[in-house]
Order: sequence, then C-alpha cells, then structure tokens
Amino acid sequence: FPLKGVRLGNLKDSTMTVSYTLKVANAKFGGFSKLLFRWKGSIYKLLYREFLVFCLLYTFISILYRCVLNNNQQEIFARLARHCNKFAKLIPMSFVLGFYVTQAFQRWWGQYTSFPLPDNLMMVVSGNVHGTDERGRLLRRTLMRYANLSSVLILRSISTRVRKRFTTLEDIVEAGFMTTDELRKLNHLYSDFNKYWMPLAWFANLASQARKEGRVKDDIALRLLMDELNNYRSKCSMLFHYDWISIPLVYTQVVTVAVYSFFTFSLIGRQFVKPASSEEHLDLYIPIFTLLEFFFYAGWLKVGELIINPFGEDDDDFETNQLIDRNIQVSMLAVDDMHQNLPPLEKDKYWV
Amino acid sequence: FPLKGVRLGNLKDSTMTVSYTLKVANAKFGGFSKLLFRWKGSIYKLLYREFLVFCLLYTFISILYRCVLNNNQQEIFARLARHCNKFAKLIPMSFVLGFYVTQAFQRWWGQYTSFPLPDNLMMVVSGNVHGTDERGRLLRRTLMRYANLSSVLILRSISTRVRKRFTTLEDIVEAGFMTTDELRKLNHLYSDFNKYWMPLAWFANLASQARKEGRVKDDIALRLLMDELNNYRSKCSMLFHYDWISIPLVYTQVVTVAVYSFFTFSLIGRQFVKPASSEEHLDLYIPIFTLLEFFFYAGWLKVGELIINPFGEDDDDFETNQLIDRNIQVSMLAVDDMHQNLPPLEKDKYWV
Amino acid sequence: FPLKGVRLGNLKDSTMTVSYTLKVANAKFGGFSKLLFRWKGSIYKLLYREFLVFCLLYTFISILYRCVLNNNQQEIFARLARHCNKFAKLIPMSFVLGFYVTQAFQRWWGQYTSFPLPDNLMMVVSGNVHGTDERGRLLRRTLMRYANLSSVLILRSISTRVRKRFTTLEDIVEAGFMTTDELRKLNHLYSDFNKYWMPLAWFANLASQARKEGRVKDDIALRLLMDELNNYRSKCSMLFHYDWISIPLVYTQVVTVAVYSFFTFSLIGRQFVKPASSEEHLDLYIPIFTLLEFFFYAGWLKVGELIINPFGEDDDDFETNQLIDRNIQVSMLAVDDMHQNLPPLEKDKYWV
Amino acid sequence: FPLKGVRLGNLKDSTMTVSYTLKVANAKFGGFSKLLFRWKGSIYKLLYREFLVFCLLYTFISILYRCVLNNNQQEIFARLARHCNKFAKLIPMSFVLGFYVTQAFQRWWGQYTSFPLPDNLMMVVSGNVHGTDERGRLLRRTLMRYANLSSVLILRSISTRVRKRFTTLEDIVEAGFMTTDELRKLNHLYSDFNKYWMPLAWFANLASQARKEGRVKDDIALRLLMDELNNYRSKCSMLFHYDWISIPLVYTQVVTVAVYSFFTFSLIGRQFVKPASSEEHLDLYIPIFTLLEFFFYAGWLKVGELIINPFGEDDDDFETNQLIDRNIQVSMLAVDDMHQNLPPLEKDKYWV
Amino acid sequence: FPLKGVRLGNLKDSTMTVSYTLKVANAKFGGFSKLLFRWKGSIYKLLYREFLVFCLLYTFISILYRCVLNNNQQEIFARLARHCNKFAKLIPMSFVLGFYVTQAFQRWWGQYTSFPLPDNLMMVVSGNVHGTDERGRLLRRTLMRYANLSSVLILRSISTRVRKRFTTLEDIVEAGFMTTDELRKLNHLYSDFNKYWMPLAWFANLASQARKEGRVKDDIALRLLMDELNNYRSKCSMLFHYDWISIPLVYTQVVTVAVYSFFTFSLIGRQFVKPASSEEHLDLYIPIFTLLEFFFYAGWLKVGELIINPFGEDDDDFETNQLIDRNIQVSMLAVDDMHQNLPPLEKDKYWV
Repeated sequence: FPLKGVRLGNLKDSTMTVSYTLKVANAKFGGFSKLLFRWKGSIYKLLYREFLVFCLLYTFISILYRCVLNNNQQEIFARLARHCNKFAKLIPMSFVLGFYVTQAFQRWWGQYTSFPLPDNLMMVVSGNVHGTDERGRLLRRTLMRYANLSSVLILRSISTRVRKRFTTLEDIVEAGFMTTDELRKLNHLYSDFNKYWMPLAWFANLASQARKEGRVKDDIALRLLMDELNNYRSKCSMLFHYDWISIPLVYTQVVTVAVYSFFTFSLIGRQFVKPASSEEHLDLYIPIFTLLEFFFYAGWLKVGELIINPFGEDDDDFETNQLIDRNIQVSMLAVDDMHQNLPPLEKDKYWV
Repeated sequence: FPLKGVRLGNLKDSTMTVSYTLKVANAKFGGFSKLLFRWKGSIYKLLYREFLVFCLLYTFISILYRCVLNNNQQEIFARLARHCNKFAKLIPMSFVLGFYVTQAFQRWWGQYTSFPLPDNLMMVVSGNVHGTDERGRLLRRTLMRYANLSSVLILRSISTRVRKRFTTLEDIVEAGFMTTDELRKLNHLYSDFNKYWMPLAWFANLASQARKEGRVKDDIALRLLMDELNNYRSKCSMLFHYDWISIPLVYTQVVTVAVYSFFTFSLIGRQFVKPASSEEHLDLYIPIFTLLEFFFYAGWLKVGELIINPFGEDDDDFETNQLIDRNIQVSMLAVDDMHQNLPPLEKDKYWV
Repeated sequence: FPLKGVRLGNLKDSTMTVSYTLKVANAKFGGFSKLLFRWKGSIYKLLYREFLVFCLLYTFISILYRCVLNNNQQEIFARLARHCNKFAKLIPMSFVLGFYVTQAFQRWWGQYTSFPLPDNLMMVVSGNVHGTDERGRLLRRTLMRYANLSSVLILRSISTRVRKRFTTLEDIVEAGFMTTDELRKLNHLYSDFNKYWMPLAWFANLASQARKEGRVKDDIALRLLMDELNNYRSKCSMLFHYDWISIPLVYTQVVTVAVYSFFTFSLIGRQFVKPASSEEHLDLYIPIFTLLEFFFYAGWLKVGELIINPFGEDDDDFETNQLIDRNIQVSMLAVDDMHQNLPPLEKDKYWV
Repeated sequence: FPLKGVRLGNLKDSTMTVSYTLKVANAKFGGFSKLLFRWKGSIYKLLYREFLVFCLLYTFISILYRCVLNNNQQEIFARLARHCNKFAKLIPMSFVLGFYVTQAFQRWWGQYTSFPLPDNLMMVVSGNVHGTDERGRLLRRTLMRYANLSSVLILRSISTRVRKRFTTLEDIVEAGFMTTDELRKLNHLYSDFNKYWMPLAWFANLASQARKEGRVKDDIALRLLMDELNNYRSKCSMLFHYDWISIPLVYTQVVTVAVYSFFTFSLIGRQFVKPASSEEHLDLYIPIFTLLEFFFYAGWLKVGELIINPFGEDDDDFETNQLIDRNIQVSMLAVDDMHQNLPPLEKDKYWV
Repeated sequence: FPLKGVRLGNLKDSTMTVSYTLKVANAKFGGFSKLLFRWKGSIYKLLYREFLVFCLLYTFISILYRCVLNNNQQEIFARLARHCNKFAKLIPMSFVLGFYVTQAFQRWWGQYTSFPLPDNLMMVVSGNVHGTDERGRLLRRTLMRYANLSSVLILRSISTRVRKRFTTLEDIVEAGFMTTDELRKLNHLYSDFNKYWMPLAWFANLASQARKEGRVKDDIALRLLMDELNNYRSKCSMLFHYDWISIPLVYTQVVTVAVYSFFTFSLIGRQFVKPASSEEHLDLYIPIFTLLEFFFYAGWLKVGELIINPFGEDDDDFETNQLIDRNIQVSMLAVDDMHQNLPPLEKDKYWV
C-alpha cells in the first residue's frame, strides 16, 4: 500500500547541527584532540576574522614603535605599554565570562527543550480519534496540521532560517501547512500580538466537535487531547518568551566592553618594548601568548554569542527547518498510515 | 462579521522591552560589537550619571593634590594613595558580584515565568463551556474577565507601571476589567491581605454553576477548568511572593557597600602621585583604567539593580501594561469570536 | 450581611518581612545607595556587636604594641604581624563563602516555596463541597480548619515565633484551630514522631464521608480534593525535612572557622607596625581597610547565618504568625462567605 | 480502645541526625560561634586523626631538619622547601573543591528528597479502600506493608546501617515486614537484579483485586492508588540509581590527589627554614597557618566525603533505620486506627 | 511452576559501572584515600598514555637543553623558558574547566535520569490489562516488548556498546525484541528520521484495541496506560535530543585548546634553566610539580571527556546493554509471572 504521509526530498542535503559526542564516546588517548581539527562549526571558523584584525592592528602598532618613533617617543611608548600591561590585569574577565556564559548556556538548553514536538500529541490523536473512513482521516490529519501550523507560526518570528523559508504567510499555504480558507480566517481575526495560538484554538474546538460526533469516544479521551494540547501550547509560548525577554542588554554590554577594552589595551601593553630597568628583555616579534589569550577569551565570548540565539544560521544552531519537516512527516505517518495498522500479534521468543 | 473582542488603540506606541537576540542571531564578525552602539536600554543610559559624578570627584581630588597641597602634604597624600591602592585589592568584588548577580538573575527569570498568562485557561473555557447564545457568551466572557481581573489586582501591587495606570480600583472598573457590582462585593469582603484571589474564587463558583446548568457537559471538563484555574492562581501567588520575599536586604547591602567603598578609595588610590622609590612614573592625567574598572564593576552592580525588580519602569523591565492588554484581548478573541468558529475542513496538500 | 470569616485585630502592628524591591524598582541614579541608610533588617543592626568587639580587641593590641612593649619586643611583634599578614591571605574565604551562601540561599528559597498555603485547597473545597445549609458550612469550615491545624502543628516545631505563640497544644485550641475533642483524639494516638499529618488524615476521611453523603457530587471532585490534599501535605512534609536535615554541620563549621581565624590573625597582622626594611611606612592608627574587610566578610557570613534558618525572629525572617492568621482568615472567607455568593453577571464593557 | 498500630520501643535512644538550625534561628551576636563547640557530628571528630598524622609527620621532618642534617644538607633542604612552597600554590584547590562539593551537595539533597515516604500512599489507602471488617483491615494493612517492604529492600542494598539491621531476608520476616510465604515467593522469582519492585507489583495486583471485590469503589479511586504507587516506586528507583551511578570515580580521584599532594609538599615547603637572602626570618616552630590551612582544605574535602554517601554511619548521615520504623508505624496508624475514626464535627470558634 | 520470563545467562560477567560510594559510606580516617589505589575506572588508566607522552617530550627537550645547545643557545632558551613560564599563568584554566565540567556534569546526570525504564509501564500493564488466558498474556507481553524495542532502537543510535551488540536490525529480531513481521512493517514505513517512536505508536494502538476487546476494563485505565506511555516516550525522546544537541563544539574546543597550549608551553617554561639573576637555582631534573599540575588539569579535562558521552565504552560509562537485558527481563516477569499471582494474605505480626 502506498504511504499517505508527507515525503520530503531534500532533507539529506541540508546542513546538520554539529553533533560530535559519538566521536568522543570513549575517553581514549588524545581524547578531545581529534575535535581540534575540524572547520565546520569550529571556533576557528567563527573567530578567524577577529583574529586577523587583531594581528593586523598589533603589527601596525609594532611597526610604528620600531620604525617610526624616535628614541624619546619610544621611551614614552614603553612606559605607556608597561602601564597598560599592569592595569589590564584588573579586569576579571574570566569571572564575568564564566558567569555570563553559564547563564546563556542554561537559556540555550532551555530553548531547545521548549521546542514543540508533536510526538505525544500525534500518539494521542492516533489512539483516540477513531474512524478509518475519510472523515476520520480528515479529522486526524487536520488536527495534526493545526498543531504543526502553530509551531511554524511561532518559529517564523524567532528563527532567521524559518523566516527565510516562509517569508510570507502565503509561503506557508504553499508548503501545505495551511489552506487558503484558514489563511483568510487568520487574517480576519485582529490581534496586536503574535497569533500563533489561533490554530491551537481551532484544534481545541475541532476536538470538541469530534467528541460530539462520537469520533472521540469518551470524556476522558477528550481530556487527554486537551492536556497534550496545553503541553504543546506551553512550549510554543515558552519559545516566544525566550525570544521576547532576552538576557538584559546591559549585562551583555558589560561583558562585551570588558573583553573588547582588554584587547584594545593589549595592543599597546603587549608590545615587546625595551624593559624599564635591569629586567630581562626578550623580543619575540610574534606575541604568541597574547594571541593565545585572545583566542581564549574572544573564543569564550564567541561561545556566548553563539548560544544566546540558537535560532540563527550558525553551523551550530538548531536545525529548525529540518525539525519542521520531520514534525509534519511523522505526524502524518502516525495519525494516518499507522492508525490501527498493527503488525500481527505473535508469541515472542521467550514464550513458555 | 464584526469582531467581538477588545480592540486597543495605542499599543504600537508603547515602549517595548529591549529584545536584541534577533540582531545577534548569527555569530558574525564583530558579533556583539553592534550591541555597543545603542542608547535605549543600554548600560550607558543607566550609568552615565554615576560616571559623571565619579569623574568630577576624581578631578576635584586631582586638582587638590596638584595645585593646593604643598610638597610635604603631597608626600603624605602620595603615601595614603599607595596605601589605598594596595589594600583596595583585598575586596573580592568579582566574587561577590558574580554570585549575587547570578542569584538575582535566576529570580528575575523565575518572576517572568510566573507571569500569569490566560492562554491555557481560555482554550479550556472556549472548548468546554458550551452555547453560542447570549448566556453562553456571557459565561465565557465573565470567566475570562475574572481571570484577567485577578492578574490586574496582583500586578497593581507589584508593578509601578500598572500602579500608575490603575491608581484606584475605580480605574480598573473604568478600564472594563470589573463591573461596579463586583467592585462593591470586593470591597465588602474584609481581608487584611491582598484580595487578588477573590475573582478566582468567583471563577470557581461560576464554573461550578455552569456545570449545574449543563453548560459544562461533564465532570471531567469541570475538573479540567479547575486544574487550569489552580495553575493560573499558583502563578499569581508566586508573583506575590517573589515581591514579598526579596533577596535579604543584608545581602544587597553587603554587595553595595563593597562596590561603593572600593570606588571611594579608588578616588584617592588611583591618583597619579609621585612614586615612592625608583619605580617608574607615568602621569596620564586621565585615569583611563580606573574609569574602565568603574564602568565594569558599577555596570555589573547596575545589572543587579536592574533585574532585582523587573516590574519597574526601566527600559529593560517587563511590559506589564502591554501584557495586560494582550491578555484581555486574546482572552475575548478566543472565547467569543473563535468559539466553535472553525475554518472549513479540507483535504491537505499531501492527501493520498 | 455580616461576614462569617475570622476577623483578626492586631495584624497591622506586627513586624513585616523587609521588602524593599519596590523602592528600587527603577534603576535610577544612586540605585541601591538608598538601601544603605536603613537600620531595620540591615547589616549594621546584625553586625554592630561583632564590629565593636573587633574594634576593641584591635585597639587593645594596638595600645599594647605602642605603649607596653619595649623595642625588642616590638621588633618581634612586628615580625609576627608581617608573618600573620602574609599567610592570612592563604585562606580563600571568598570562595568558600560564595559557594556556601549560594547553597544556603537555594535552601532558603526552597523553604519559602514549601510554605503550605491553603489557597488551592480552599477553592477546591468551596467549589466541590456543596450545600449552603449548616451541615454544608460545617463540613467546609472543618475541612479547612484541619488543613490549617496541620500547618500550625508543623510550624510549631520549626519556627521559634510560632512556638512562642503556641507554647502548648492547648494554646492552639484556645486560638480556635482545634476543638477539645480533637486535641484528646490527637493525644490518644501514639506516635514517636511529629503528628502534623493526622489532621490531614481526618481531612481525607471527612472528604470521603462527604462523598457518601452526596455533598461531594462525583468521584472526580473527590479525586480533586485528594490531589490538592496531597499537594498540601507534601509541602508540610518538605518543611519538616528542611528543618530536620540541615546543611551538614561540618560544612558550616569549616566556613565559620575560616572566617573567625582569618580575623583573629588580622588583629595582629594588620597592626601598623614598623616596616621590615626600606619599605614605606604609613601609620593610620585606624585600620580602615581591615575594618572594611571585616564588614565585608563577616557581613557575608551573617547573610549565611540569617538565611540558614528563615523561621527565626530576625527582621528578615518569614512572617510565620502573620501567614498563619492570613491562611485561616482567607480559608474561612473562601469556603463560607464566598461559597456560591457571586456578583450578578453583566455584559462587560467591550460586549458587541 | 487499644491502638492497633506498631509500637516500637527503642526509638528515643537511637542516634539522631545532627539538626542545629533551631539553635541558630536568630542571627544574634556570635552567630555561628556557638556551633564551634560541639563534638558530635563536628569537623573535629571527623578530622582529628588526619590532623594528628599531619602534625606527627611535620614534627618528624622538622626534627630531621633541625637536628640530623648538617649545614650543607640543611641548605639543600631549605632550597627544596622554598621550591615546594612556591609551586604548591599552583594547584587551585579552592576551585576544584568548590565545584566538586557543590555537585556532591546537590546529589546529597537529591538523595534525601528521593527517600520514599508512605505518607501520601497511606492517606489514599485509608480514604479509598473501604470496610472496617477484618477483610478491609487486612487489605489496607497488607497494602501498606508491601510499600514499606519495598523501601526496606532497596535501603538494605544502599545503607550500611540498614544492612547491619537486616543482614538476611529472614531478619526482615522477623521484623514483621514480610511473611514467610511472601519470602518464599520472592525467592522463587528469578531475577539477576534487585527485586525491590516486586512487593509493589503485588500492591498493584492487590489493589486491582480490591477493585473487583468492590472494596475500592470506583475506577478513579483505583487510578489514584496507582498514581501514588508509581510516585512511590519512582522514589525507590531514584534511590537505587543514585547509589548505582556515583559521581565518576575519576573526578573524586582528581580532587583527592590534589588535596593530598598539596599537603604532602606542605610538609616540606612549610618548614621554618633559614631564608634564602636578606629576607626576614621568623621561626615559630609550630606552623599555625599551615595547620589552619590543613584544617580548612582537608575539612572541605571531608565535607565531600561525608555527603557523597549519606547512607553510611556517620553522625550526620540520614537516620534510615529510624525512618523505616517511623514509616511502618504511621502507615499502620493511618490505615487502621484512623480509618473512618473521626473526631465529632463541631462548630468552630469563629462560627457566626 | 516454571518461570515464563526471560532468563539471560551472561549478565554476571559483564563489566559493571564503577560504583564506589558504598566503600566510602563512612567518613573514616583516610577517607577517600582508599579510592586512590584502584586501576579500573581510575584516572591513572585514563591518563597514563598522555602522561607518558608528556614525560617523553619533556625529557627530550631537557636533554636538548643540557647536552646539545651551546652556552649562548642555552641562554636564549633560558630566556624563552622564563617568558613562557611567566605568561602561561595568564590562561585561567581552573575557571574555564570548573564551569565547563559543571555543565557537562549536569548533562551527564540529565542523560542518566532520561534513561527509559519500563518499571512504571509494566506495573500499569500488569494491573490493567486483564486475562490470564493466552490472549491476555500475549497482549501484555507484546505491549512490553514494544516498549523495550523502542528503547533498543533509540539506544542503538546513541550507545557504541549497543550498536556493537545490535549491528543490524536483524540482530534485534534475533535477540527476541522484534518479530520478522514487525521488522518488515518498520522497514516499510518511510521516514527520514529515527523511527524509535513507531513501536510506541503500535503500543498506543494495541492498548486502544485491548480496550475495545474489554481486556482494559474502563476509560480511566486506558488513560493511565496512555499517560505512562507518554512518559516513557518523552524519556526516549530526551535521550535522542541529548545526543543530537551536544555542548556547542566551540565551547569544547576553547577548553581543549586552553589546556593543550598550556602544557605545550609548560614543556619549555618548566625546564630547570639557569636563573636570570641572583635568584636561587634548584635543579631537580624531574619536574615533580609540573607533572602534578599536568595530572591535575589534564585529569580534570579527562573528567569532561568521560562524562560528555556516557554511552561509550569507558569503565565508568552507563551499562546500557545490562540495562536493556534487565528491562526486558523484569518486564516479562511483572506482566506474565507476577500477573494476579499474589502471596496469600495473612495477618501481619503487629495485628491486634
């Protein structure tokens, strides 16, 4: 028999979130070292532009000091550099970055776990909205379509990837998540705010109607549908709020200013100037430790930038479009193809 | 057909919470740097007054040292400054600020997630309180009005913005959240404590009456209404307690005293005094690192100040008035306009 | 009509938990500075005795060093002081205090959120135990009285304030939470452990009896009563366990010893002794930074002391007696005065 | 009437978990200082042996240095000591201890809150399994006995105290938690894993049988019994898993090695050796700061040791045997003595 | 009577997760020291290869410096070494490791608690799917088989151990978790994503069919089955997402680069070079503190490596194969052997 679900062609080609834990499942020799030689989703890819700019600026100032300045100016510059170097240590970047990134990390995971997945809902619809005739199929498919439509509406306002895929509401109709009538109804209902909850209100009303028609057999089954609907809606709502209420801008600014100003002063303070006194002098030309420090702290800040909005288009961001496709596909599979379509019951291997 | 919901005019003009995550969705070159050039909701706007005061005081002391004091006094001042500078390092501000702000941050988010949203309740009311006649509409609208009234009552005692909008209970009647009879009843009932729960008790009794009238069809639907009512009430209650039980004053005082005293002694300790011994001297006039440190630590404390009460009138505080308008609007939309008002059922695009 | 609830006279006069967040709702100029000039619930009130003792001891040693000791003894003392000063830095107080206070803080908030509030229970009783006759009122009032009695019993064993108010079980009878018969029954039932759960067992049995009498209309309503009862009991139980299982004594001792020994050695190490070598000498007589450090670290430890048991009689501790009064008052109001006593249903302002 | 519950004699004599919060309910002068002079459950009791060993070793090396070594050897030793002292600072013990103990602390509290208490279950059994005849009593008592038996089985495999009390399964029969028939059945059922869940499966089956007999009146009451049973089982299961999956051994080893090696090198590095150069020399003989540091860091590690398994026999460990006795006692009291045994309903004091 | 459950032979021989808490139940003298002398699951086993490589490299450079370089080159090398040593301190490894490992630890425990255990489900199936005839047994066994099959499918894609055991889907049929018909059906249903949820959809449909046949007696029992099914599915789903969404690669790279570069520069910086000035020189040949530091920091990173994927084949990883065996065994035991198979009801020891 032919499958009635949604068949989507191009999923294999889409970029995948960078999963690497299977590669480091065993803590073998070298361990994480194998993770260092990757480009996709790596810190190198994220940071190389900033790194180049920092190197260029450092070289520029270095040449200025060595070739342009006269002896007296060099002496003043050297003093300034030592002053910068001494005081730059006063900014406790590791503290503020540690706390900031930890908080961003918790929100990041919180956002992922708030992603509305229709799995519970589709099992409940499949098991409790009866009838293998056309009306039954229509009811089940429409219920699941409403649920998926709702998540598409909310994701459009959050994720830049989804926004690009569905630039207008017509694109959603085009993609089969909504009918033209539904779009007209949605547009007619006036609200100053995001209308993502409306298809879920239709779900509630349609379920209630299915109960009247006897497609939902009893009140307890209806309650189950309502409970799962509310769980689903809560997740959509949570996603909306994670987007609306960001980490206070002030906090992000304080952290950013700390890191940026530290490296601005490093440009001067870490030049290989002549030492003040009898102190030993070593001129390496390439400030390897300063570059390392830059890599480290700027990289830590980049972690924060990356995870503060996981619905962007970074290599490591959530695969929202893929998840949308997966959700509609499995929804239809579960409520239509698999409805009352059981493998034959057999005695298992250990039957005595 | 005309919409029966609440249409509110001036929402677009109201100030919006500062959402910026969409701007940094992709971790591109520069990353957070684009967030540094904003005034609204920024650390600059919050901090510039303290910053000016600090600069003025520093300048005053600097002039005093350079122009007014004689050589001997200068020497004593220099010693004092070195003493201050040495010991000011003993106060571990980054530690105490890191822990304090983290705790304030968790409460801040906890408060936001405790904000009572009627979405679950309105779906349940729309799906389970039947009848498209006037009595049915009246029941559904009144139930949702009670819920919204309750949240307005609790928010009035928490949020300065809401308090300004509804200075007296009559203002709430005026805004259409309460009738005059309800206000009279509310005033009649004597309680030494916040009465925000009373409209919810009316909700419970009205739902129970609707069950008797057969508008709520079965006991399980009534139970569902009661469960969602209790969830809603728990959030109102949580909000009340977040407000009542603050972070212990003692903790806030310890943190504040630490930061303030640090910068008081910085005013002396960070003056460019003549060095004690052969130590190198550099007179920059403008204490750029001290200003940076001020910006950083005082900014971190400001983050704490900002998030310790998110129901104030800061740029970054929660949009309580907007949320109140949104809630009553969508409540009415869901239980009245959208009640049993479904788009026609059609076969979806993938139907086989 | 006269109110049937509990009217309590002296609530207004009782001390209130120190709520200050409304005062700092807006992050204005000065910010937290306005919180520094308070006495009630302040760190000054908590710490001034320790502070005075520290000052006295410091002065005593200072006089000893300056006036009593001869030159040779002074030299030895100075060495000892420098030794103390150098090694006192080895104790990472900020670390251990930061982690300890954070953990105490989480327990503190956990205890508050475990406080049993009858609000959910009273709504459920009001909506599901029917009958406006005397028997109905008696059932509802008794059920709520049992719930409140239970919380009083548990709070007596936790809170010093409640223990003072109800020194004997007779005081509870006197206050109207229990009848003499109930007290007799309670005493008769032998248990080696806290009996706070017994009134809740009566609640369960009485609800079950009300179901038999038909006062509770259906099994689902009874289940709702049972569910809310279990939630209420869980909170009482949680409170009991928070009290029974403290933060391990060992942890508290380690932290306390660290802070106390640090300041004991500070008494010697922070004296203004003559410097060892060419090092610069500054004699301030008043060790302002040491006092500041004392204020800071001892204050942080005081935060821990304050929040480790929030059921004491500190200014900042929970208002247990007030909450007990509030709970019985609103319970009676909700199940008696407000039972089926609804304001007339009217069309709201936005009705179309 | 005679009580039908379980009367246990020797509870008063058993050691109690060290609760001290009531003693520090008010943050008075001195505060935590009163906690320092306790022996039971104290850090002194836990640490004095290690402390003595450390002192002995230090003294031994000290005598070796002062009396045995010649001048040249002393010089080499002094260099070694200075080297040790300088590098021992490189190990960030406060960091790793802070994070480790925090994680152990969260598990510790998680384990306590996973302790299966029969309170909810017994209320549900008392209110929903009807009949005051012998069959009814037998059903209720057996159900509660099964629940308690299950917790005894799981605690035997976790707690050393409970293991000592019930060395064989026969001891459990002896103590009245199991009958001989039940033991035979338990032994007959073959499983390679802990069988703690089997009595709970009996509970489920017995409840289902009671429903058939009509002792449980309706399906909703049966569902309530099943829900509470599942909660109870989840807690038993959680306890089992906390025991099975420890904090990774590797983590514990890293922390332990850090602390132990630090103090090993302290034995050499903190000797009062002659200074290298003009540096000031102070020979205190007793290395008071090193001892303090030992007390502090080793004490912090001991906190970790103490809480990593709260089911041992330390003073501060959970009172598992007492809790087992309490649980069976209150279970029987609630389902037998208190079943349908209500105090007479009276009008309360505030009745109007 | 013969047991009908699954009897598995080789469980005893399989490696067990390293549980050690029972060994340190009592905080005795020495405490954790006894944990240091273990090889299995120890840090030594994990780290010895890296340790050897580090030693070899250090020795190589040491020999180069001492034997190959001439005086002038030695001088330059010494300067370089001092430079390295001074700047290597700038990388705050303890901070970043502390925060990183803490976050990995929380995920690690989150993954364990997401492990789907059939215990609740099997009790509910045993108590609510009736009939001791063949059809009843078949229904119960098949339901539990579906649940177990689902967890096997998800674990195959996560755990390297389970993947090795079941390399193809045929291996799962072989092991008795699936019949050939079921495999055919599973293969027929097309989905681009993991199909672990399909057997659970069969479960839902089969339960619904059992309700129609009257094997499940009422709607509330069916709802209970559905609720527990959804809990079980949520756990499978959570496990899938923990695997899919790793800690961002960028974060792991930053931490790894920090630790690796630190030790690369330690190879040079910690050589025993001749001191720059009058500074004291001590040549130990073996850099004991550097090795200790390596052991400590690299060990801490290894903790991160170990717990970032607990489904590998390390000694300390979860015993997924064992758990799979345990789950199918107890499932069959509970729903078949123990179904309605109760020990005789007897009066307990304390019966009065």
